[in-house]
Amino acid sequence: MTDFAEALGRTADAVETTLAALLPAPEGPERRLHEAMRYAVLGGGKRLRPFLLAASAELFYVPETYALRAAAALEMVHGYSLVHDDLPCMDDDDMRRGRPTVHVAFDEATAVLAGDALLTLAFEVMATEPTHPDAAVRAELVERLAVAAGCAGMAAGQMIDLAAADENLDAASVARMQRLKTGALIAFACDAGAVLGRADRPERQALGAYAHDLGLAFQIADDLLDVEGDETAVGKAVGKDAAAGKATLVALHGPERARTQATMLANQAAKHLDLFGKRAELLRQAAAFVVNRGS
Amino acid sequence: MTDFAEALGRTADAVETTLAALLPAPEGPERRLHEAMRYAVLGGGKRLRPFLLAASAELFYVPETYALRAAAALEMVHGYSLVHDDLPCMDDDDMRRGRPTVHVAFDEATAVLAGDALLTLAFEVMATEPTHPDAAVRAELVERLAVAAGCAGMAAGQMIDLAAADENLDAASVARMQRLKTGALIAFACDAGAVLGRADRPERQALGAYAHDLGLAFQIADDLLDVEGDETAVGKAVGKDAAAGKATLVALHGPERARTQATMLANQAAKHLDLFGKRAELLRQAAAFVVNRGS
Repeated sequence: MTDFAEALGRTADAVETTLAALLPAPEGPERRLHEAMRYAVLGGGKRLRPFLLAASAELFYVPETYALRAAAALEMVHGYSLVHDDLPCMDDDDMRRGRPTVHVAFDEATAVLAGDALLTLAFEVMATEPTHPDAAVRAELVERLAVAAGCAGMAAGQMIDLAAADENLDAASVARMQRLKTGALIAFACDAGAVLGRADRPERQALGAYAHDLGLAFQIADDLLDVEGDETAVGKAVGKDAAAGKATLVALHGPERARTQATMLANQAAKHLDLFGKRAELLRQAAAFVVNRGS
Repeated sequence: MTDFAEALGRTADAVETTLAALLPAPEGPERRLHEAMRYAVLGGGKRLRPFLLAASAELFYVPETYALRAAAALEMVHGYSLVHDDLPCMDDDDMRRGRPTVHVAFDEATAVLAGDALLTLAFEVMATEPTHPDAAVRAELVERLAVAAGCAGMAAGQMIDLAAADENLDAASVARMQRLKTGALIAFACDAGAVLGRADRPERQALGAYAHDLGLAFQIADDLLDVEGDETAVGKAVGKDAAAGKATLVALHGPERARTQATMLANQAAKHLDLFGKRAELLRQAAAFVVNRGS
């Protein structure tokens, strides 16, 4: 196992422990909601966003307990978005990470509520004192997370994606849709590390540029998996984008050119981190990982 | 028109203006999302929760611009909960405030996303500086709103309500479900005023006791409307709770006893405000209004 794989796994374990402690223990007549929240978020995924947050925070010597809480909150938002995107009225997916999706394992109403409650809990975690002693830092985390996830970020991207099958988007519109839908939360991951670490402006800009290119590379790699991936390895249905006539850069330019572009973006992302010297090595490796990953 | 009705109308107008400015202007390929958010929240409702927040804040001489932003954020959360509760997989309601519900006027996917984005925007508004110059106040507003709306508050109440038709709840369980589903957000309204005004402990306890009794009275009045109200005046389908076999205090005890109980609770609520003297007159009148309102 490479150093990077080990670091990724170590963060994933720590985030899992943090999530398990922050999520409600199933209790009372509402326990079904709590069970669905835990099912949605625990025991799955590579935890790439939490890793990016933790690795960014490490650049600024942020105590790990702060970074892990913020990372867990971010993963709750990611989890909520998957639960809602998988709903029958949205992308209508039955499998996710090799398991039935929440609305299949529970029911639609519970899935809607579990997503709602995960999103809400994420903001609660960000706003509470153990995440950072300085309330200004916590308020800024809440604000930036909301901007990244909301109607000028992830939710807007999902709205465009839903309409894309009917609308024939051009390459620029597809890139914007993906930047909103996926890129915004990835950018937040890096930005949150900088906020927790009270980074100065050049440091924030460097991390922002890194996250921007990384997000694009990530999305192209995701689309390639949908075209070329194996259903079992990927853990969800593949070939859905093409079947739905969804506009992706892979569909527009073909897999060859898309792969070249993803690699180029990942290299470019890594270069933005020169400012941080050797301390940013894990983040550089994350860029390479993103274009070569399984899901 | 009474002083109270005038004050309620004045706050409703001010909140409408604040909401219209805070909600996204429909733009870009995601404009459908923005339109649905505006449709869900603008131009409807008595704005009782915003009124309670503004009137509570006024007890502590909080500048109106702060209170209105917090009130608008609260109303976004209330609006999101209505949009999601009305979904076919939840309560399946076609009409709300005399108009088609969001999933009827738009579509289900847009309704889910619009609810998500309203909830997210609410936290953004709470966390940003124009809501209060002190970040500790803003972080506390976010935390308390999240607790009130989340898996130990409103979302838990909705989960229990969905299961209630099958489960035959007793009176204590019904009261708890309603305290979570409706009471938590009403209690937050009063509490937010106290947070904005940095109230001391006795003041917060008095407002908390008021909000607790008011919330119960409100819910009983709501259930009475479902049994006895006129569909046109109420603006949504009535008789649904009984048809769905839902446990309400009206169903358990009959309308007579329920009405007596609501009046008693409203009187009790008003008494908790003695501490504030004449300044709390509007909040006292709000208690009477809640049990006699149309919807």
